[in-house]
Amino acid sequence: MAIGILGGGQLGRMIALAGYALGQRFVFLDPSPVANAGHVGSLRVGTYDDEERLADLARSSDVVTYEFENVPVASARFLNELVPVYPPPIALEVSQDRLDEKQFFQGLGIPTPPFAAVSSRAELDRAVGELGLPVVIKTRRFGYDGKGQMVLRTDADVARAWEALEAAALIVEGLVPFVRELSILSVRGKDGETRFWPLVENEHRAGVLRLSVPKSEAWTAELQARAETMATAVLEKLGYVGVLAIELFHTADDRLLVNEMAPRVHNSGHWTIECAETSQFENHVRAIVGMPLGSTRLVGHSAMLNAIGQLPPRDVVLAVEGAHLHAYGKEAAPGRKLGHVTVRAETRAELHAKIAQLRPIVDPVTRS
Amino acid sequence: MAIGILGGGQLGRMIALAGYALGQRFVFLDPSPVANAGHVGSLRVGTYDDEERLADLARSSDVVTYEFENVPVASARFLNELVPVYPPPIALEVSQDRLDEKQFFQGLGIPTPPFAAVSSRAELDRAVGELGLPVVIKTRRFGYDGKGQMVLRTDADVARAWEALEAAALIVEGLVPFVRELSILSVRGKDGETRFWPLVENEHRAGVLRLSVPKSEAWTAELQARAETMATAVLEKLGYVGVLAIELFHTADDRLLVNEMAPRVHNSGHWTIECAETSQFENHVRAIVGMPLGSTRLVGHSAMLNAIGQLPPRDVVLAVEGAHLHAYGKEAAPGRKLGHVTVRAETRAELHAKIAQLRPIVDPVTRS
Repeated sequence: MAIGILGGGQLGRMIALAGYALGQRFVFLDPSPVANAGHVGSLRVGTYDDEERLADLARSSDVVTYEFENVPVASARFLNELVPVYPPPIALEVSQDRLDEKQFFQGLGIPTPPFAAVSSRAELDRAVGELGLPVVIKTRRFGYDGKGQMVLRTDADVARAWEALEAAALIVEGLVPFVRELSILSVRGKDGETRFWPLVENEHRAGVLRLSVPKSEAWTAELQARAETMATAVLEKLGYVGVLAIELFHTADDRLLVNEMAPRVHNSGHWTIECAETSQFENHVRAIVGMPLGSTRLVGHSAMLNAIGQLPPRDVVLAVEGAHLHAYGKEAAPGRKLGHVTVRAETRAELHAKIAQLRPIVDPVTRS
Repeated sequence: MAIGILGGGQLGRMIALAGYALGQRFVFLDPSPVANAGHVGSLRVGTYDDEERLADLARSSDVVTYEFENVPVASARFLNELVPVYPPPIALEVSQDRLDEKQFFQGLGIPTPPFAAVSSRAELDRAVGELGLPVVIKTRRFGYDGKGQMVLRTDADVARAWEALEAAALIVEGLVPFVRELSILSVRGKDGETRFWPLVENEHRAGVLRLSVPKSEAWTAELQARAETMATAVLEKLGYVGVLAIELFHTADDRLLVNEMAPRVHNSGHWTIECAETSQFENHVRAIVGMPLGSTRLVGHSAMLNAIGQLPPRDVVLAVEGAHLHAYGKEAAPGRKLGHVTVRAETRAELHAKIAQLRPIVDPVTRS
């Protein structure tokens, strides 16, 4: 069976590396001839809206998935006429527009931070008035890793933001004070079976994920159940197939608010390769091909650290017992995700010691 | 860094699948244009003695390894003039001839079953007289998975064997009654660092490995230490770099006799992908590239079952919690290794229950 993947980055690469053991073959479509998934499978070079390349991908594939949520919805729908596309294009559509996405959650009764659509200066002022500063202003489309968003704390910030962003369709969100960021990773099969990995606690800096810790000290069965209920509503509503990640804010008064979702395998689930019985990548393949889903139980205590802008000194990382390096095979560039390190330990104390040991090596930027 | 691999079968494929995370690239040389490692890396088609293809592989590689011990030694030496070859060609040379291999072990003081070289009918009769029936007669070269060997129990067997095998250089070995077969998997880095995985208990049928259980009930620290001492002697003597497997007989009177060695990653180590902190495939890559070696500790209780001749029904296997399918992407054929299933459990009791559950599915041949 051949799986076509829109996008040839590290997520596609890790899907393929997991899927080969299941006897699958992989074909990637990516605009870049040096896309790093090309090292591990067949790479077709083309833009995501080139119907000839899309049709070619469909002909080569029994099922198509995507590793990148800014693939044009029209392309996913075009492909879906030719070959099954999972997750369903509707999931792509909902998640591409921050306003649609928030309204979608709202419609399911899933709490989100307060928000308002903004397409004029008057609407911006009204939204700021209603929500009260500080707020976050975001472009509705094509944002990721903190791009296309600004925090507004003063009236001067508001004016400056409008100057910078006025061309775009915008959303303004209340800046919810949260005590931690969490994510719930879920997977749904074609037959509707669902599985959830334990909640992951995430730490971002400059809008980019730095550290993920599954089942951290903040984890409770009650919190897990609440997150699973939310994820289930989303999965069911979308008739979802594949892995879905939902990012959450956990507030001081124990509310769980949805920030956003990603209809794909997710950076906060990379630790599952070594530290869950079945990785998000394998379960994504199992789901879209129609295989039974695998166990999501934890294997040991673990954490994942992202390597941003530069890869850590390889031999220093590998000399740490239980450290697993994942280099994505990309050219280094400032702010670029080049790899990650997962560490597995037998106890929580050992885990924290290893995070402390690895952090200055893998993520050496002065903390702000 | 690019790693060239002689042989494009499942072992090469699994080396690559592990090595990509370490940022490596892979090029395979195999006589078959449909070699299954070609799915996951660049495949060059050519015979192992084609110097033009070998030179081409060397030009494309920073280091060369092999996944198949019947690669011509001359080819490994030719390559080694152009680019480092690990494990060193001497390891290939020693392991390709059963007589040289046994004499090599003998020279290191490592016990083996009694043996004698045979190149005439008179030598055969003398060997049988000395060792006493039953014996095993083997071709000295190109045997694997029980091929090129016969058990002789009667004088008629001896006569028949001579008729069948007289053209070949032969070795006759005493048929040692053993209580179990074990293997010790080891890895040695360029700097001489060595690591050992826990002893594996192996079950063969018709000369082919069927079941491997690491750290089985027969395991003791003393047995592990004895096996490690033997492996260390071999590793040091050969100036070895990479993974080495040594197959052992454990006798009723608690002797540990070496049967043979394989200078490569080994079928009895496939469980390490999920169930050791570092797999044999990853540590092989780490060793030959010159990275620090990874921990060989066990992660849970595990076993591996080989799928011979046919793949098991995929969905039945995957529905077993903790079962991990590895399909090699090969055409089915009688007796061919098409895949394996590793199962991981949290307790020994659970492990045995899962082996009992999986065995009729993965290895359904009527037991003889």
